[in-house]
Amino acid sequence: MEDLLKVKAKIKEFTAECGHQKSLELLELLPTGKMLRSKLILKIAGVNEESIQLCAVVEMIHAASLLHDDVIDDAMTRRGKPSINAMYNNKTSIMFGDILYSIAFTKLTFMNLKIAYNISNAVTLLSIGEMIDVDLGETFNTDYDVYLDMIYKKTGSLIQASAASAAILAGLEESKYATYGRNLGIAFQMVDDILDITADEATLGKPAMADFKEGKVTIPYLKLYEELDNSGKERLKSLYKKDLNEEEIAWLKNSFATTKALKSSIELTQKLGFEAIEAIKDEGNLALIDIMQQMCDRKF
Amino acid sequence: MEDLLKVKAKIKEFTAECGHQKSLELLELLPTGKMLRSKLILKIAGVNEESIQLCAVVEMIHAASLLHDDVIDDAMTRRGKPSINAMYNNKTSIMFGDILYSIAFTKLTFMNLKIAYNISNAVTLLSIGEMIDVDLGETFNTDYDVYLDMIYKKTGSLIQASAASAAILAGLEESKYATYGRNLGIAFQMVDDILDITADEATLGKPAMADFKEGKVTIPYLKLYEELDNSGKERLKSLYKKDLNEEEIAWLKNSFATTKALKSSIELTQKLGFEAIEAIKDEGNLALIDIMQQMCDRKF
Repeated sequence: MEDLLKVKAKIKEFTAECGHQKSLELLELLPTGKMLRSKLILKIAGVNEESIQLCAVVEMIHAASLLHDDVIDDAMTRRGKPSINAMYNNKTSIMFGDILYSIAFTKLTFMNLKIAYNISNAVTLLSIGEMIDVDLGETFNTDYDVYLDMIYKKTGSLIQASAASAAILAGLEESKYATYGRNLGIAFQMVDDILDITADEATLGKPAMADFKEGKVTIPYLKLYEELDNSGKERLKSLYKKDLNEEEIAWLKNSFATTKALKSSIELTQKLGFEAIEAIKDEGNLALIDIMQQMCDRKF
Repeated sequence: MEDLLKVKAKIKEFTAECGHQKSLELLELLPTGKMLRSKLILKIAGVNEESIQLCAVVEMIHAASLLHDDVIDDAMTRRGKPSINAMYNNKTSIMFGDILYSIAFTKLTFMNLKIAYNISNAVTLLSIGEMIDVDLGETFNTDYDVYLDMIYKKTGSLIQASAASAAILAGLEESKYATYGRNLGIAFQMVDDILDITADEATLGKPAMADFKEGKVTIPYLKLYEELDNSGKERLKSLYKKDLNEEEIAWLKNSFATTKALKSSIELTQKLGFEAIEAIKDEGNLALIDIMQQMCDRKF
């Protein structure tokens, strides 16, 4: 998509301005993701200098958060390619994350104040969400509201802020797009959490069924826990954060196959998707319905 | 100093607003430093709500950079107390750094645009400075200009931005205070680099003579390298990044004692101090001369 190339060029331009050659080299090594946030912004605000700049800022923030994420999760791959911490080391990943964050924040100071506030505040929420995510890995969390609050902060907040900020650029009603973005973001994370179980390593670009071992009790596990009887609940808890053997993997897969855990998780993402579309249904922007549907139906 | 307590209270208030209990707990564990940047801001802009907020933002940014620094340097202590990465782990230090950074950036969006730009841009410079510092640890750097550029970015930029921003708040001539802050910051880092050699562990709150082993060729080592004959230069290079035995430490101490390396390093900090004072000499702010002198004469 040609417009996304403009965003990538803007990111390069912003990075080049700081005059640090190594940052430009590291930038080239970052894998390009789906650029969901940019697609969203451009569909709401159209393609113009301001919206491209906003996209660049948001993508730089997203990339910075992933650079720190990969250090925190000890992730050796990102989108099927070696991560910066794998290619260089943790230090480089932390420092390059800080550089991208601060360039983005500097560029925000030239933008609409409300946009600057929305995006900056979202970074606080996503950083707190990341910490809650790690802290939840200490115990087996069965509280749906705690999980929902965490994924809202970790993933929903920046997508919400992106949609709301794009609406401000376009002179549209901010709150409607914020609701849309919040729901899209939460559903997006839940789809990720479901794919961790249903997709294979080749499709994901990272090991499959990794979340549970990493201490993440995601929505399908929450739903599974709800459905299992007491002995099943105990068994599930006993597998938490463990390297599973074949028999244990088989039990887990069978549990997902014989309960409605996955189905009701998928229904929940669809419900969130519906609420998102409901919020902007009178705005006449069919592309946003497409984005939501693509996101709910995606296989990776 | 009562005014610095107001800054600490403001930092707590800003952190509390984000509603994340653990962040408040972690904040309590951060050792209070000299708060040089706050002292400077308050001496330029006076004590008022705006200046206290600016101090809080700058101290939060400084604290965030130290949290990431301690992970990057694997530092187990900070100002004589265990570091957050030592008490918790690297993850917590990275994430809490991100939280403090983003709260600070969010608060900047409510401030004067030029101030928001100055401070954000300084964070880019300091992050780049940190990366250059680490990268310089790869080889024995003998280029003074490269060292100077690095310490300007790493330490000078935020102090420069603090002084310049305080001048904006007070309606004073920004460029004069920027020059003062830049020189103060560079001299401050050089004094740190000198104390690493001349002070003992108890005074420093961290191991003495640690820089050279960590790959940092600081100003006294640059000056020493200049002064030594060829065989001395080779010997110095051979000790770089090594765990030194007693004989090697004795040789190094003797080299510093019998050359002008330390003396000319100290003279350089005084020259920078003089240039700083020169920049603001007509401003009638004697406290700034005091700050510079205290900083040059400090023993820790």
